[in-house]
Amino acid sequence: MGHYRDNAVGAENQQERLIQLGWVIGFVDGEGCFSIGFVRQSDRPGRKGYKTGFQVSHEFSVTQGAKSVSCLGELVRFFGVGGVVANERHDNHKEHLYRYAARRRTDLISTIIPFFTSHSLHSSKQRDFEKFARCVEMIDGGLHLTREGLIVIAEIVETMNRQKPRTEMIRILRGHTPEVQDTGS
Amino acid sequence: MGHYRDNAVGAENQQERLIQLGWVIGFVDGEGCFSIGFVRQSDRPGRKGYKTGFQVSHEFSVTQGAKSVSCLGELVRFFGVGGVVANERHDNHKEHLYRYAARRRTDLISTIIPFFTSHSLHSSKQRDFEKFARCVEMIDGGLHLTREGLIVIAEIVETMNRQKPRTEMIRILRGHTPEVQDTGS
Repeated sequence: MGHYRDNAVGAENQQERLIQLGWVIGFVDGEGCFSIGFVRQSDRPGRKGYKTGFQVSHEFSVTQGAKSVSCLGELVRFFGVGGVVANERHDNHKEHLYRYAARRRTDLISTIIPFFTSHSLHSSKQRDFEKFARCVEMIDGGLHLTREGLIVIAEIVETMNRQKPRTEMIRILRGHTPEVQDTGS
Repeated sequence: MGHYRDNAVGAENQQERLIQLGWVIGFVDGEGCFSIGFVRQSDRPGRKGYKTGFQVSHEFSVTQGAKSVSCLGELVRFFGVGGVVANERHDNHKEHLYRYAARRRTDLISTIIPFFTSHSLHSSKQRDFEKFARCVEMIDGGLHLTREGLIVIAEIVETMNRQKPRTEMIRILRGHTPEVQDTGS
């Protein structure tokens, strides 16, 4: 249970909470990212792969340089879910990067998605959030476990900001049309 | 006079105002930029240049893509100063960029600087803001009109995020040491 759900104990405290709540919305408008990831996971010797051939993940994240890592701690305290990890990118940055990340489906469904449903983002990221929430809902319903469901999800993800086209993945999934028909009927 | 100074008319309205105030802080933590600019302006035929050889400007800005330009309109309404301009960069962007910008010294001194003095940023941009405010104060006191004052300002600006080194400019200014002594005594 995050900070924003606590009861107020005084007017000044309540003011600070509302300002903090607004800060989270504004900061996520600026720096937040809602993303759905796909990793090819076919059958391999000794391990059964995913039926569709792809593993699906979901993440709400906010990235900052080392000098502003305290802002990410604020998000952990505010939401009461997720954590801060060192970013694994190693390109030409001047300082180390850190990432607030909430990836567990239960955390997204119980906390992150309800928060941004009640408190809309002001920027075009709102549309990304809505698509993200729709995908997580479908994943929670198990749709990503069927090829046709996964195609629907991939097609939504393609239209989200900063996400690469999933043409190849969709082509692979469509290449197995007979199985899709088996699963869907 | 910006939105944040109006009197509250009801509890719900007041709540919305505090959330909006927090949103501005968070959005600026993510996307804001406090910058001091220098342009070489020597004497030219028919026009007297600046005594130091450089024109100094100050700007608080927030840049967004076209899809989120409404966020910049929010800043105009909130602060009651500044405006939205099309960004003049023409590199490899997917959408047109727009910039909220407050550049007039009176707007910075009467509105922008007092706001961020009362409501600190949470990220490392706070340090940039403090340096920016110090520079604007010095400029308001006319220090940028002397070579030695301009060197002090340039040296502060060099330590701000995303600002390029001013080695060349400081070298040029230092090259005129006798005049600096004339001005400063």
